[in-house]
Formats: sequence, structure tokens, C-alpha cells
Amino acid sequence: MTEDAEHRRLIVAGSGIAGLSAAIYAARSNNDPLVLEGVEPGGQLTLTTDVANYPGFPEGISGPQLVNDMKEQATQFGAEIDHGVVVDVDRAERSSAGSRGGSPDDDSERPFRVELRDGTVYTCDAFIAASGASARTLGVPGEDELMGYGLSTCATCDGAFFRDEEMLVVGGGDAAMEEASFLTKFASTVHIVHRREEFRAEDYWIDRVNEQVEEGKIEIHRNTELLEIHGSQAEGVDHVTLAEHPEGHPSEKLDDPDTRTYDFDVGAVFLAIGHTPNTDYLEGTGVRTDDEGYLITKGGRGGGQTRTDVEGLFGAGDVVDFHYQQAVTAGGMGAKAAIDADEYLEDVSRAERAEAEAAADD
Amino acid sequence: MTEDAEHRRLIVAGSGIAGLSAAIYAARSNNDPLVLEGVEPGGQLTLTTDVANYPGFPEGISGPQLVNDMKEQATQFGAEIDHGVVVDVDRAERSSAGSRGGSPDDDSERPFRVELRDGTVYTCDAFIAASGASARTLGVPGEDELMGYGLSTCATCDGAFFRDEEMLVVGGGDAAMEEASFLTKFASTVHIVHRREEFRAEDYWIDRVNEQVEEGKIEIHRNTELLEIHGSQAEGVDHVTLAEHPEGHPSEKLDDPDTRTYDFDVGAVFLAIGHTPNTDYLEGTGVRTDDEGYLITKGGRGGGQTRTDVEGLFGAGDVVDFHYQQAVTAGGMGAKAAIDADEYLEDVSRAERAEAEAAADD
Repeated sequence: MTEDAEHRRLIVAGSGIAGLSAAIYAARSNNDPLVLEGVEPGGQLTLTTDVANYPGFPEGISGPQLVNDMKEQATQFGAEIDHGVVVDVDRAERSSAGSRGGSPDDDSERPFRVELRDGTVYTCDAFIAASGASARTLGVPGEDELMGYGLSTCATCDGAFFRDEEMLVVGGGDAAMEEASFLTKFASTVHIVHRREEFRAEDYWIDRVNEQVEEGKIEIHRNTELLEIHGSQAEGVDHVTLAEHPEGHPSEKLDDPDTRTYDFDVGAVFLAIGHTPNTDYLEGTGVRTDDEGYLITKGGRGGGQTRTDVEGLFGAGDVVDFHYQQAVTAGGMGAKAAIDADEYLEDVSRAERAEAEAAADD
Repeated sequence: MTEDAEHRRLIVAGSGIAGLSAAIYAARSNNDPLVLEGVEPGGQLTLTTDVANYPGFPEGISGPQLVNDMKEQATQFGAEIDHGVVVDVDRAERSSAGSRGGSPDDDSERPFRVELRDGTVYTCDAFIAASGASARTLGVPGEDELMGYGLSTCATCDGAFFRDEEMLVVGGGDAAMEEASFLTKFASTVHIVHRREEFRAEDYWIDRVNEQVEEGKIEIHRNTELLEIHGSQAEGVDHVTLAEHPEGHPSEKLDDPDTRTYDFDVGAVFLAIGHTPNTDYLEGTGVRTDDEGYLITKGGRGGGQTRTDVEGLFGAGDVVDFHYQQAVTAGGMGAKAAIDADEYLEDVSRAERAEAEAAADD
């Protein structure tokens, strides 16, 4: 190869719960993992102040603390954790000197070439994609301009900046309920805007929000959507335009006489409308994804559940899971990915030894 | 119903990592779970002195401590944890008074009738099987008689009873390596007997065992099997009969001239040859299992991964997983089972409300 690329046995992209669990297991299997932290070191859990449902912590634990503990655990077993954002993964061509003509299928598919945003290039025998998912936005006017200026995708990060303001939370899942509930600490009133009648959130959160509705801290606007955010980077969010239709999804029915469009004064807007998996950088591998970009892994029973259709490429956490998305489910998948990768790497080593012996016999 | 049975929304059988993780999640979803602890409260992890690879504990944590912490966490959120061993689960017939003639498929399949060893009977709308797996035995002469008298399936439980004895560990996986390594604290020498040449264990454990081989604490007997255990309940294990064949699996080749059969003096024998899933009590439900008795769950992508082919019956942990079998993978499955059960129970409630409304309209 003409490039000056360090070779690694295993690279893990992402340092959230899935990536760090994979690192713990991979380090214990002597696969010398290099973890590249990505744009959000620690992943989405770092945005959670109190993780109550990760099994093993009866008093709860803060997201950043849990992530740091896992980092320390992975490092103790020999994982290397480094800054670095993977921007491209590709199947590297082997140097012709290394080619022995045997097992052409394997040779064409590995090792991987991994390019980072700062230009650094690695090659590796196996790659675990644990790069998570990023907060989704609405694509409405005002959004791009005001993101970070009164508009946020993280209540726990930014809520405290808007004390005693009216706040708007968009969404109907656990995240939206949790953020709304959290924001009552700061807001004069929290307004939840949800495009349908029913919430997707777990009962725990719905109950908690309902209590806060009764206490006058939260108001729920069902069948309502956010159409536009008004304000400026200098002054922040001033007000929003909302639409309401008794049967939900008002933005699709703006000409319907039953749709009511109105302005509403708020000082901050929080989006909690889901996430998009961070898998674009894997395009060069040709790995199979679904329409939304989630990696399609083998699943099923027995070993190899985290395998993708590309040999040596494994997926764990929110790049695969669009449904459960819990810390402990991500941790479980990370462990599985490391175990699957270890089996793959053992197979590769055995094949190489056999090849070398065959060559020596010639 | 003629039986005096308490009805529960959700019963979880088993109080290992899978069951307790399910309980934490189910309690937070207001499904009021009753956890029945089973024959081994806390499950297999209670036999592990140091859990090093459960993500979140850089200093490690003892198995019993981790289990207790999860128990406390589940209880805090409202789970009820009780002694009780489930001996039979069946689809209960509905009382005719409760039958409204609608949705016959659902009605015939739930609620479940759950019978405990002490005769207590419950009914429930949903059931999570997290009853784990039990240590496997060899079926060789002497085994039944000497179990608990020098023969054990748990080194951490019984190792200390045999100080300064020669000890034999049967197996080639992680558990065998871990047990052998642990037993060096007590044994004069630990002998690992493995029927094949290669170990299945992770490198971490193979390396650790190899170090102890170099230190003279462990001896490895490859391609060797245990044929008989000799001794008495009064005096314990006296010696064993072993067989060795250069190509492995000697017990299948006893007439082969290359098979060497010999007696070997040891004071204790530990079996670490895998586990059998505890699923017999589910037979009455007709749930699908594989040939070894592991529950077959839906798996795949998206929701419902822990569903079995019986509506309302979910599986998590070592009753399903014959491959990964880690604390964090069991925890992940437990959480998924609770989330899947919650969705199922919500559907049931919605259907019942609709049915009641339809009946009221008549």
C-alpha cells in the first residue's frame, strides 16, 4: 500500500454504551481494540443526568458517570480510546506483495481502510460500528438559524439557560416526556407539542407528566405541530407558529377548515422527535441498511447476531436498534459484537496460518 | 374458575440478571411484576465471586452484590419478588361468565395458569420465562452417588472444601478455565480434562490458564475424557478413570488401540461442561423450543424480539441464549422482554376496552 496507515486488529467506531461494552469484551479477548470516540464522545447517555433503569445501580447513576466508568473498565483491560471521527470506511486493496492468490473472497473484503476527519488513515481486520444515532430535526423555517440560539435537541444540556421562560418540547416518546419533566425545574410552563392524540412514551413517563400537568407545570397540546420558529441569534426564540387539527398531523392538512394555525410565545424550543443512525460513513463498504440507514445485522439465534452482510463488519447499539434503544440493550449488543468479532478474527488467523503452512510446503 | 388463584398482570419466572432486568423495566412500565425466584435465587451469577466484564464496574463487582443491587432497584420501582418455584404453566380456560364470544384466539391463550411447587396457583396476562439454565452432568458411573461428596458443578461454591487436594476440572470453555484458575488457590494441582485439542474459552482465560500451567499450578490433559468417578459418600472422591486418544473424543473410541485408559488420583472433581435450559415447566403451553429445550423467540429487527410463538409468553436470558450467555446480554434481553410484554399488555387492554364499549353499545 502506498498510504502510511497504521494497522489494527479491531477498530470500534463510537464510545457510547455499545462501543464501550464492545471495547471491554474485545480487550479481554486480546483483540487490542482501538475505540474512536466520534463527534459525541460517550454517546447519547452523556446527555442524561439520571440513568434510573440501567440494571445494577439502585440509586441511579448519571449518564456521564456510567460512561466514564465503562471507559475506565475498557482501558484497564487494554482498550485504547482515542479522539477521532471516522468519515469513511472502505474495503482496502491488499498490497500485491501480501497477496498469495488464495481465498480471493476474503482478500477482497479485508482489511478495511478507515479514514478519520483529520486525515489519519488506519487499516483493520475487523470493524465494529457503534456510532449511534443523531437527533432529528423538523426542517421548518427558523430551525437552522436558531439551533443553539434558543432551539436545542438536548434539554439536559441547555434547559438551565432559559430559566422562567415558557418552553416548548416537540415529541411524544420517552425522550420528549423526560425532557419536558426535566424542564419544569426551570420553565414557567413547559408546553408539549405532539402531532397525534396518543403518546408513544412508557407509562412511567406519561404518569409523571400527567402529575405535572395537574400541578400546572406542563401543558399538553395534542394533534399539534410546529410550523415555524421566530426569533434571532441575538435575541433567541421569540415565538413559534403552531397548527392544530382534531385528527392529528395538522401540517398535512393546512387547507382543511378544521386546522387552526396560531402564534404562540415561547422563549425556548426543544426537539425530541427521534434520531437518525450515523451510518453514512460506511457507504463505501456496500453494507446493507434499511431505508432509514439502520444497519441490517444477522440477528436470529446463536452466534453471529451482530454480523452485517460485509465480512468483518459488525453493528451494535443505535446504528442497528431503532426500537428498544436502552443503555442495557446497547451494552448487550456491544458485548455480542465483540464476541462475534473475536470469532471472526480467530477464523481469519487460522486461515492465515493454514495458508502460510501450505505456502511453506510448496 | 373453581380454583382460588390470585391474578397478576405479569409474572417473571427467575431472579437472575435477565429476570431482574425485566422486573426493573416492567415495574417502571406499571405492569406490577411478580418475580418468582426459582430454585437458584439470583441465578448463576451468584456463583461468581468477581464479575469483571459487566459494563459499569471498573473495579469489578461480586455476583451476589450485583444481583442484590438489581433486586433492590426492581423493588424500588414496585416489583414484588417472592420465593416460589414455577412447576407448570398452562393456558388457563376462562370462566364462562367472563367469555363474551369475541376474539376466540386471544381468549383461548390467556390468561396463563401458573402453578408453584408449594401448590400456590396464579393466573396472569403475560409471562416472562427467565428461568435460566442448569449445570449439565456427564452421566458416568459414580456421578449420581458422589454429587455433593467431592463432585461439584460449582468451583466457587465448593473449591475451598478440598484444600491441598489434586483437583480435576472437566470442560474447555470459559467456565472451565475460570473454575480451574480459581481452584489453584486451594488445590495442590488442578488438572483440566478436555475431550478435544482446542479450548473454546476466550483468550483472556486461555492466557491466564497458560500462565498457571507455566507456574506448575495447572496441568492440561487434552483429548481426554472422564469415564468413571470412584469413591464413597463417607470418604469422598478417591480417583477417576480417564481415557485419552490423540485425535480427541476418546470415549467414542474405547476399542481403538490408540486409546489409553488409566486411573488417576484426585480428591475432587468439578464439572464445567455447559448447561441445560430450564424450560420443562412450560411444556403445557406448547411453546416451541429447539432440540435442547432452548426457547425459540422471534428475534430479528425492531420490536417483539423476545416473543415466543405463544401469545403473551416471552423468553429472556439463558432459556433462549445458548451462545453469548453474559450478564450484560442477559440484562439486555430482560429489558427487551419487559418492553415487549408491555406492548402486548397494552394491546390486550385496548382490545378489552373496545370489547367492553361494543358490549355496552348493544
